[in-house]
Amino acid sequence: MQLGLIGLGKMGGFMAERIRLGGHQVVGFDFNAEAVSKLAASGNVGASSLEDMVSKLQAPRAVWMMVPSGNPVDETIAKLEKLLSPGDIIIDGGNSNYKDTQRRHKEVSAKGFAYVDCGTSGGVWGLKEGYSMMIGGDKEPVEHLRPIWEALAPAPDKGWGHVGPSGAGHFVKMVHNGIEYGMMQAYAEGFSIFQAKEELNLNLPQISRIWQYGSVVRSWLLDLTADALEKNPTLEGLEAYVVDSGEGRWTVFEAIDLNVSAPVITESLIRRIRSREQNNFTDRMLAIQRNAFGGHAVKKD
Amino acid sequence: MQLGLIGLGKMGGFMAERIRLGGHQVVGFDFNAEAVSKLAASGNVGASSLEDMVSKLQAPRAVWMMVPSGNPVDETIAKLEKLLSPGDIIIDGGNSNYKDTQRRHKEVSAKGFAYVDCGTSGGVWGLKEGYSMMIGGDKEPVEHLRPIWEALAPAPDKGWGHVGPSGAGHFVKMVHNGIEYGMMQAYAEGFSIFQAKEELNLNLPQISRIWQYGSVVRSWLLDLTADALEKNPTLEGLEAYVVDSGEGRWTVFEAIDLNVSAPVITESLIRRIRSREQNNFTDRMLAIQRNAFGGHAVKKD
Amino acid sequence: MQLGLIGLGKMGGFMAERIRLGGHQVVGFDFNAEAVSKLAASGNVGASSLEDMVSKLQAPRAVWMMVPSGNPVDETIAKLEKLLSPGDIIIDGGNSNYKDTQRRHKEVSAKGFAYVDCGTSGGVWGLKEGYSMMIGGDKEPVEHLRPIWEALAPAPDKGWGHVGPSGAGHFVKMVHNGIEYGMMQAYAEGFSIFQAKEELNLNLPQISRIWQYGSVVRSWLLDLTADALEKNPTLEGLEAYVVDSGEGRWTVFEAIDLNVSAPVITESLIRRIRSREQNNFTDRMLAIQRNAFGGHAVKKD
Amino acid sequence: MQLGLIGLGKMGGFMAERIRLGGHQVVGFDFNAEAVSKLAASGNVGASSLEDMVSKLQAPRAVWMMVPSGNPVDETIAKLEKLLSPGDIIIDGGNSNYKDTQRRHKEVSAKGFAYVDCGTSGGVWGLKEGYSMMIGGDKEPVEHLRPIWEALAPAPDKGWGHVGPSGAGHFVKMVHNGIEYGMMQAYAEGFSIFQAKEELNLNLPQISRIWQYGSVVRSWLLDLTADALEKNPTLEGLEAYVVDSGEGRWTVFEAIDLNVSAPVITESLIRRIRSREQNNFTDRMLAIQRNAFGGHAVKKD
Repeated sequence: MQLGLIGLGKMGGFMAERIRLGGHQVVGFDFNAEAVSKLAASGNVGASSLEDMVSKLQAPRAVWMMVPSGNPVDETIAKLEKLLSPGDIIIDGGNSNYKDTQRRHKEVSAKGFAYVDCGTSGGVWGLKEGYSMMIGGDKEPVEHLRPIWEALAPAPDKGWGHVGPSGAGHFVKMVHNGIEYGMMQAYAEGFSIFQAKEELNLNLPQISRIWQYGSVVRSWLLDLTADALEKNPTLEGLEAYVVDSGEGRWTVFEAIDLNVSAPVITESLIRRIRSREQNNFTDRMLAIQRNAFGGHAVKKD
Repeated sequence: MQLGLIGLGKMGGFMAERIRLGGHQVVGFDFNAEAVSKLAASGNVGASSLEDMVSKLQAPRAVWMMVPSGNPVDETIAKLEKLLSPGDIIIDGGNSNYKDTQRRHKEVSAKGFAYVDCGTSGGVWGLKEGYSMMIGGDKEPVEHLRPIWEALAPAPDKGWGHVGPSGAGHFVKMVHNGIEYGMMQAYAEGFSIFQAKEELNLNLPQISRIWQYGSVVRSWLLDLTADALEKNPTLEGLEAYVVDSGEGRWTVFEAIDLNVSAPVITESLIRRIRSREQNNFTDRMLAIQRNAFGGHAVKKD
Repeated sequence: MQLGLIGLGKMGGFMAERIRLGGHQVVGFDFNAEAVSKLAASGNVGASSLEDMVSKLQAPRAVWMMVPSGNPVDETIAKLEKLLSPGDIIIDGGNSNYKDTQRRHKEVSAKGFAYVDCGTSGGVWGLKEGYSMMIGGDKEPVEHLRPIWEALAPAPDKGWGHVGPSGAGHFVKMVHNGIEYGMMQAYAEGFSIFQAKEELNLNLPQISRIWQYGSVVRSWLLDLTADALEKNPTLEGLEAYVVDSGEGRWTVFEAIDLNVSAPVITESLIRRIRSREQNNFTDRMLAIQRNAFGGHAVKKD
Repeated sequence: MQLGLIGLGKMGGFMAERIRLGGHQVVGFDFNAEAVSKLAASGNVGASSLEDMVSKLQAPRAVWMMVPSGNPVDETIAKLEKLLSPGDIIIDGGNSNYKDTQRRHKEVSAKGFAYVDCGTSGGVWGLKEGYSMMIGGDKEPVEHLRPIWEALAPAPDKGWGHVGPSGAGHFVKMVHNGIEYGMMQAYAEGFSIFQAKEELNLNLPQISRIWQYGSVVRSWLLDLTADALEKNPTLEGLEAYVVDSGEGRWTVFEAIDLNVSAPVITESLIRRIRSREQNNFTDRMLAIQRNAFGGHAVKKD
């Protein structure tokens, strides 16, 4: 089977390779010509433009977008609509907001194209271990793409599924990332307690290794954490600065909109935000308040 | 009425003066001779030692301890027990843990002394505005001390009360401080949002002044906050570093022991702890985890 | 000065009376004819329709909307635009989202009307104690309305202010309510701890009365809480069900959008949401997980 | 190798069997005679009393306690001290507080016995999958017990380790459980969001199955959750009531004592406490406060 692929970065490049290994052909395009050359060199097909990509695909075409969420997705769709034929399938495999996806599905469907959303988990490990895919959209195009899902997944019958109508794939992936925030924060807090308990002189890499086998908290994240701790047991040289991409925020907004109380996912997001606040205004105000009512000393800069 | 007073620091010194203004006499001792001289110069009676203090008090004596919680209280009690006579009253007006207070009450009572605990709120403003006092202990000594409560309180019949048996005064004061943490944090978060909303160019002192009159959030803390913001609208020169004394922690421990969920008081404590964490280990671990599964860049020191 | 007033409910009715007491005349309309009659009976002027109201106002007119946020505001504006003349002023005194206010200001201004937003705090106590008003909009109309602000405020020069451009009034009021959530939750947690500490047999109304004078946590909310506890010390007969109106949510969303960590305001919202969750799914999932790994018993319905 | 085992309940019984399968002999005692019979019937050795158990063990003896934490551990030690000989080893494999463990180690060591603490994870799955063991204590006895660790662990060289001095094993297990709380809560919140998003009609068992392969949130807990959801997709018949054993609380106390901010572990504990609060007092107080300042309706019981 052929698959057009737009975006050959870290995620896209690895996915193309896994699809190829599954016996399929990727026709890939990226604004970065080097990424296209690399793709072509590894046995897939490079395209010099979207036009070139579309021309190299046989109808009915399937084109997978692996581009940053937001405007890049809308812009790519606008261009594809001029190149594709009715019946062709557009797939958004990135981390789009599911409400955007539902809007796009409606707009694209009105023009005769199919639109499928795929929440894709697995990160840089996907090439080796396969991707977990939560798929939303209409039944027919999702079914048509079965060979692709089977090639990308950890096993043909594992790690992927059609979870609901348009937007459902991105919705499920969004919440997946919210859970991920919570799990990460839970581990990180625990290891912080170990690190602070100086009198016991605990060996953090050792503990993470022990827990990998038989413990209730064993997980793939723990496996990676154990590897990372082994390389850098004190996490020296790192800054205490944590980025959050959109999905965690959206999960928090969605929980509130649905009237579901989700304190741990929310708090995990708040702590990431906190990690980026410099000379925290809230804390300075607490200090000045303590000074105002109790005469407590404040620290000066 | 006479009152022995041990500890003539920020709190004790002001209290002595308010008691004197109420028509009573304080016989005060402090390890700091200068504080004793200052007390004597202002119309009360200075004592050069605990022995001297006790000798200047007529039985039945009442001795108020205004010393740091923990060992200093136990040490002071041990000394007083050798100097006082059965029927004399010891008062702990500091921020002792109520469990210590209950233990001390038991020990001291067994030796024939009365023991009263007084949670004292009002800070450096107490001299001018009066102190709020939550009093625990046996009925008789609490009643005996009525002239003192009436002198210290904002008005003879307001701002003080016998809230329960030994320990109850310190228990109520402990929770008072927990609530105080929550209120402070709520205000501080709100003003942080204002400060961050650059496009509206809000005037923080102005807002706090407006809220002082007629708003649902008006409070004494807000009055102080408004004054502080007027002096320093951007809180410049302050460090984002917030101390917590014991009562907030004890409130959190107590809530958990009682199986009462108290997320806001707890979170307020956690944020104070957070303000003092440098190069946060938790955040560094999140950064390394994100790098491990997603290849996301980390910031280096 | 004359003021048109649309919405004569709990808030609007009291405001009309306070404006009248300030020496001004309200021409009021409400879909509820009884409310209009009541207004007319108390010395203001009733209107049978918006047309009637506008016809009874001399240009330049000022019309204050005190209607539920959302569609009712847009609908009222649409009707007013057909009745008013350029230079007339529309005021939104309700709890609109500041983003809607900014949009409306733009739309209304393009048609030659002035648009002022006023975040109004004070609740059912405003008639007696005056309203706290945070005002946003252009300078001229805000200044033109000075007699109204002075009449509604607790004192002519206190409790109101022009805090910024259009939307700033509603923005500040939104955060005000977020802070209010945090303060309420802090008090409520504290009193819950008292109520659970059965061995001390604490008297909650007494404690709240003590704190009203001299304590660090004294506030208007505490005054009201003390009154409410005196009437119903065990809060019996009440359901543990807490409504949240929109401003708390918006504050949380705004904090996240601004990258300000605001855990206490957020947690206060989450707890209100939690109060309305029946047979909580999260908790049931925890129970089944504990059963799955540890064989721990679950409670059956 | 021989091992005395006190406590043949859910955990102890399975452990005995796994030790036997590892080629060793358990001499087991339990107050429940049936559990002893069952042990004997499965190829290990039953004991009718502690005396009987000790008499059937060859010196140097090793006796593993698998009894509830707290008094039962102290009581068992008191009895064992009268029966054992210097050089014998006592192991506490339960969830004792590490501070108790450190005290016991000191007391027991003074009498010539060795004392080892083992935090044991794996629950009811340990027999099949092996136990994860975090071991604290002196080097010699821990090394002496190597055959037992190798038998109980998932593999001889995996899932166990000597993590530090006395108490370290229980300390690490305590934090392990705190992390477990956080992970469970994160998953549970995520699935609650799915369940509430009715318009997408999501299939919770399907999603959990997808995530088991290739996703970032895959874990053993997720495997168990997927099994549980498959059997009961709506979790019907369960009560929203979550027990917490001591380790979560201790983790929270420890974090605060160490001045480590751990909001997610803490919040997970608070939510479990919340699940058991009936007719929540905090929420009722919020309702009465809203009524007091804003005239908002309250729900009556």
